[in-house]
Amino acid sequence: MYIPMNISTVTVDPISNSPIVILKEINGDKILPIWIGIMEATAIASELENIKFSRPMTHDLIKNIMETLDVKVTKVEVCDLKDNTYYALIHILTSDGKEYAIDARPSDALALSLRTNAPIFVKEEVILKSAKLTDDESEAMDESEKGKKWKKILESLKPEDFGKYKM
Amino acid sequence: MYIPMNISTVTVDPISNSPIVILKEINGDKILPIWIGIMEATAIASELENIKFSRPMTHDLIKNIMETLDVKVTKVEVCDLKDNTYYALIHILTSDGKEYAIDARPSDALALSLRTNAPIFVKEEVILKSAKLTDDESEAMDESEKGKKWKKILESLKPEDFGKYKM
Repeated sequence: MYIPMNISTVTVDPISNSPIVILKEINGDKILPIWIGIMEATAIASELENIKFSRPMTHDLIKNIMETLDVKVTKVEVCDLKDNTYYALIHILTSDGKEYAIDARPSDALALSLRTNAPIFVKEEVILKSAKLTDDESEAMDESEKGKKWKKILESLKPEDFGKYKM
Repeated sequence: MYIPMNISTVTVDPISNSPIVILKEINGDKILPIWIGIMEATAIASELENIKFSRPMTHDLIKNIMETLDVKVTKVEVCDLKDNTYYALIHILTSDGKEYAIDARPSDALALSLRTNAPIFVKEEVILKSAKLTDDESEAMDESEKGKKWKKILESLKPEDFGKYKM
């Protein structure tokens, strides 16, 4: 089952100091954090914050190529989580009605979804696996520490961030 | 007039500490340094060094989109230099024979050219403007300092780097 989500925010994991993009269920409370690279975080955050550059950034170039070829991004899916790696698919539709799903890192898929207003879907299994993964990684911590870790991340999100970027 | 060039190497400008990609004329000695971002430098250098990642990096994704759509990158051109900004065009050819030129930053165009074996052309005017720009920036330096600056950059290139990545 795929769950419609949107990008809530990009923040920094206070434990690993690595950027994370936080997806939030549109019609519910499910949350999925995805650890991404600093460059990909910039590509997502700059679009969330509506920052315009004088020259096309790499994901703007992808959007421009799609537009030139009259190809529409219909949706992006976060479809798997294996060996700590998240997988995504970018679904595209050509002007003559052909559909393709292109393998991508979630960060690229999400950066492109923001630029093309494509909806984001996450396989429920990925959310379950991710919760388990986070629990496993926190194994050494006691319950209150685990709680603190996520409290810290979620506290860094302003209430107005949630749902702010609904598409 | 457009001059066929290839990517000689990616190095770091010892003055600004910024990454530069160095293009070199295939049939001559003309050289064009282009200052680029750290991420774009990584995208070019990893391909030059033939480093493979388990997941598609952003320019691999562009290549995969092109291949999926049966679109060929025929050439990339560094076509202008205005206000210290270099401009490039990515020329593409669709399976039904349509040609388009897409505006891009040179770093993206070059990263894509490496992945698609597309030839690189540079407008002669850009090389002349670039030489002038470098001279202007070095105005405060005396001749021997100017010489030293470029000597330092060029010395950091191993002889085997030149022409190593000819396509």
